[in-house]
Amino acid sequence: METQHQHNKDLEKVKDLIEDIRIAMMTTVDEAGHLVSRPMAVMQMDANGTLWFFTKKSSPKVDQVENHEQQVNLSFADVSDASYVSISGTAQELDDRAKIDELWSPAAKPWFPDGKDDPQLTILKVDTHMAEYWDSTSSRMVRFLEM
Amino acid sequence: METQHQHNKDLEKVKDLIEDIRIAMMTTVDEAGHLVSRPMAVMQMDANGTLWFFTKKSSPKVDQVENHEQQVNLSFADVSDASYVSISGTAQELDDRAKIDELWSPAAKPWFPDGKDDPQLTILKVDTHMAEYWDSTSSRMVRFLEM
Ligand SMILES: Cc1cc2nc3c(=O)[nH]c(=O)nc-3n(C[C@H](O)[C@H](O)[C@H](O)COP(=O)(O)O)c2cc1C
Repeated sequence: METQHQHNKDLEKVKDLIEDIRIAMMTTVDEAGHLVSRPMAVMQMDANGTLWFFTKKSSPKVDQVENHEQQVNLSFADVSDASYVSISGTAQELDDRAKIDELWSPAAKPWFPDGKDDPQLTILKVDTHMAEYWDSTSSRMVRFLEM
Repeated sequence: METQHQHNKDLEKVKDLIEDIRIAMMTTVDEAGHLVSRPMAVMQMDANGTLWFFTKKSSPKVDQVENHEQQVNLSFADVSDASYVSISGTAQELDDRAKIDELWSPAAKPWFPDGKDDPQLTILKVDTHMAEYWDSTSSRMVRFLEM
């Protein structure tokens, strides 16, 4: 996972919290209205706080986000470290080959053994609208970002 | 977290996977339609696969589940162990003092320092409808339970 310097200090805090965990559970709403989640490796958090993922064009989650006003939740949890982050955002598929080149790393190989030229490979970009993290001092989820 | 012997072998598999993680990220749909999540300690998985949590009557998540057809997702993640579980279910508040007595354990003290007689303490019970886990051999989420 590559992270860039954040212009916004609250986004810098998100970055510090998630970069050690790296893998989000991404929750979407499926065809039947059920909430489903799956692990997703963050490829990049850019300077605007946008989170970039790779996925397959045929993946059900691509349709699920389109059919539900693009709403997703990304949770990052490390129980042994009492570290918990919830990001509410909107997801969008983006078939941008130049950005795929930029994001590509061998870390993506396990999911895309055919490499970055796999025609099924596409981008899922998540814009953060709200972020909360567990603050063990005050024993509550602190909402520290709302855009 | 207390777990009971599962009659169903697929539920036994859920049990094995979640009992080491213990803390779920519970995702609900908020008033604005956004997906939000927070850590929740599983108090019990009973013999029917129902997951039992404590919460506060005044907690926003109680209203959120009532307003969205009770839909929740519980994700259990342990990145270091590549262990990921997604449970789709329906949640229901249940103010049952006898069940509260049965579930009470000192592990709940951090969230309920006033103990089990705290009038704000209530139960959130989640019935599992679908469960998936990450199978690293086949590199995909395997849906192993659908009820
Ligand atoms: C490890 C851990 C376990 C938690 N377990 C519970 C729990 O069992 N019940 C609960 O109501 N809150 C629990 N919390 C606090 C919740 O994450 C949350 O802050 C609180 O329930 C308020 O949620 P809401 O405002 O979204 O309704 C736990 C927090 C942590 C860090």
